[in-house]
Amino acid sequence: QKTYKIAVIPGDGTGPEQVREGLKVLHAAAGKEGFALETTVLDWGGEYYLRTGEVLPPDAVEQLKRYDAIYLGAIGHPEVRPGILEKGILLRLRFELDQYINLRPVKLYPGVETPIAGKGPEDIDFVVVRENTEGLYAGSGGFLKRGTPDEVAIQTSINTRKGVERCVRFAFEYCRKRGGRRKVTLCGKTNVLTFAFDLWERVFNEVGEEYPDIERDYAHVDAICMWMVKNPEWFDVIVTDNMFGDIITDLGAMLQGGMGIAAGGNLNPEGVSMFEPIGGSAPKYTGKNVINPLAAVCAGAMMLEQLGETGAAARIEEAVKKVCAGHLKSLAAGRMGYGTDEVGDLVVSHL
Amino acid sequence: QKTYKIAVIPGDGTGPEQVREGLKVLHAAAGKEGFALETTVLDWGGEYYLRTGEVLPPDAVEQLKRYDAIYLGAIGHPEVRPGILEKGILLRLRFELDQYINLRPVKLYPGVETPIAGKGPEDIDFVVVRENTEGLYAGSGGFLKRGTPDEVAIQTSINTRKGVERCVRFAFEYCRKRGGRRKVTLCGKTNVLTFAFDLWERVFNEVGEEYPDIERDYAHVDAICMWMVKNPEWFDVIVTDNMFGDIITDLGAMLQGGMGIAAGGNLNPEGVSMFEPIGGSAPKYTGKNVINPLAAVCAGAMMLEQLGETGAAARIEEAVKKVCAGHLKSLAAGRMGYGTDEVGDLVVSHL
Ligand SMILES: CC(C)[C@H](C(=O)O)[C@@H](O)C(=O)O
Ligand SMILES: CC(C)[C@H](C(=O)O)[C@@H](O)C(=O)O
Repeated sequence: QKTYKIAVIPGDGTGPEQVREGLKVLHAAAGKEGFALETTVLDWGGEYYLRTGEVLPPDAVEQLKRYDAIYLGAIGHPEVRPGILEKGILLRLRFELDQYINLRPVKLYPGVETPIAGKGPEDIDFVVVRENTEGLYAGSGGFLKRGTPDEVAIQTSINTRKGVERCVRFAFEYCRKRGGRRKVTLCGKTNVLTFAFDLWERVFNEVGEEYPDIERDYAHVDAICMWMVKNPEWFDVIVTDNMFGDIITDLGAMLQGGMGIAAGGNLNPEGVSMFEPIGGSAPKYTGKNVINPLAAVCAGAMMLEQLGETGAAARIEEAVKKVCAGHLKSLAAGRMGYGTDEVGDLVVSHL
Repeated sequence: QKTYKIAVIPGDGTGPEQVREGLKVLHAAAGKEGFALETTVLDWGGEYYLRTGEVLPPDAVEQLKRYDAIYLGAIGHPEVRPGILEKGILLRLRFELDQYINLRPVKLYPGVETPIAGKGPEDIDFVVVRENTEGLYAGSGGFLKRGTPDEVAIQTSINTRKGVERCVRFAFEYCRKRGGRRKVTLCGKTNVLTFAFDLWERVFNEVGEEYPDIERDYAHVDAICMWMVKNPEWFDVIVTDNMFGDIITDLGAMLQGGMGIAAGGNLNPEGVSMFEPIGGSAPKYTGKNVINPLAAVCAGAMMLEQLGETGAAARIEEAVKKVCAGHLKSLAAGRMGYGTDEVGDLVVSHL
């Protein structure tokens, strides 16, 4: 029997509850499809930091390289200053494991309420491919005369041909495989970011030439935000840099019904990838059995897809659809009409 | 009789039609309130560039300094490579006239359709104060090994204490004057842009201390985009940098019904300010008498407000509300149920 080794980082707040239900579903799906998941829980997060004074143990990255994938709950603790855990865990792992793609499907399931008037599941179904290791996330910059009236603060976006090219190529390959509208839209700001997006645009057109079966489109990030709300059906695959990707994927999460359902993958197609519900740790709901675990369940399905277990992934997706359409009153924490554990059970019952 | 000298730049595409109706309304409102506008048309834009080979005449900025305000139609010509006119006219004037605030009211008028389900005029009523002369718009950056596999493209956000402070101060002052929910929200990304938004956050808190009557709030740009769609009623005044401001104001324009109504001001409170409908030149509708002129009309009202003619500005706003609620079928070009000129006439009839 095929067995995958999964590193599980439940994290903070409601992260452990979400991950618990996610694993319940993953193990059940694995059973049905005849493979197994061997999970190792790593207790990193806010508590670990407060207890040990270090965000991650020194060999954390080396440890993680031994697994087939990483399954993450949520990071963020009310007693830890904002930024420390995000940078020290999430961003560090993305960078050091070279997870150069952030993949965010934006898909409205039947029965789920979207805040966008007059749009349904046939309109909201696209994928954002976000570059995940460069741009403004490089952490590059500094201060001149900090704290004086003459202070200057600099923040630098660094974009490499290699980084942009592998991201753009992934987007075209993914678009072809996906078999949707066969269109890749570059989201940029060529008229203002004349260096960064000059590179992006050149690479986009060069690489795109190799995919004559796929339509190429370009739009400025400001227009993309408008159209996501007004005409989401125009999009198939959107490719963009790290910062713009961060912004438009959260907007996308809203379109598909919010943080209760939105999942993402941090992919290194040649290495170890990490999957997460994209909402935060929602500390105020901790231990109340009210958080929606579907985002973690969907992140788990993405993980199985990446591991090549497409049958199990599709099975989970179908079960989630049935739970959304036939059971839940709302996707919002505390308003689902079911407890966190019951939602996990419902998904399992539909597998 | 008080007379204001206005430089009018009708610009490209449907810009002249929009400006024509805007001026019709402005002159009528001035007549009712007992002041006058002396307008000078400057024919800068795509045609001028194609004819002369220069984007602006050498003394353009000096010329403009002689006016009380600038009234702009739209810039953008199908035969001119994207970026040239935007940078050469719009961004250049913002920078050289030191129009350091981009002010964007986001207000849904009764009778106007918003793409956001279940939200009405009582929910969508906030203002974005965007820094307009710094950040990623500085144009700073460059390439290393351009065109090779080792290429690096750099784009730098430059933020000065002076630039950030005057913007943040404007936001608090504006919030106090506005008399709304009395809350200023800083839109940033402190957990990633740890230099740029460290400065912004420090200045926001320092300056905010001087306004004990105003609530201070902070949110990351990605969360702001979600909440604008999900809970727009949470916002009163949002202050942010140039790039994030560009993104969230276009999203805001959608909430209030789109480009047919969205207006903005590029303010130099100590110098010459410029007012514009924020939509593009929409060349395909040129000369067809179908473009919606209300955004230009609203930009005109903002201009009068800035000139101190608050009575005339309020008069126009009320008239626009009546036209939206009582006449127009839609705000979209070609679907208003009236021609461009008729919409101008309708506003005048309600002044
Ligand atoms: C937590 C934060 C650093 C992170 C990001 O900005 O990438 C998050 O918003 C995300 O999108 O995964
Ligand atoms: C045309 C473009 C350069 C401009 C900007 O990015 O500022 C526009 O989008 C705006 O918001 O006024």
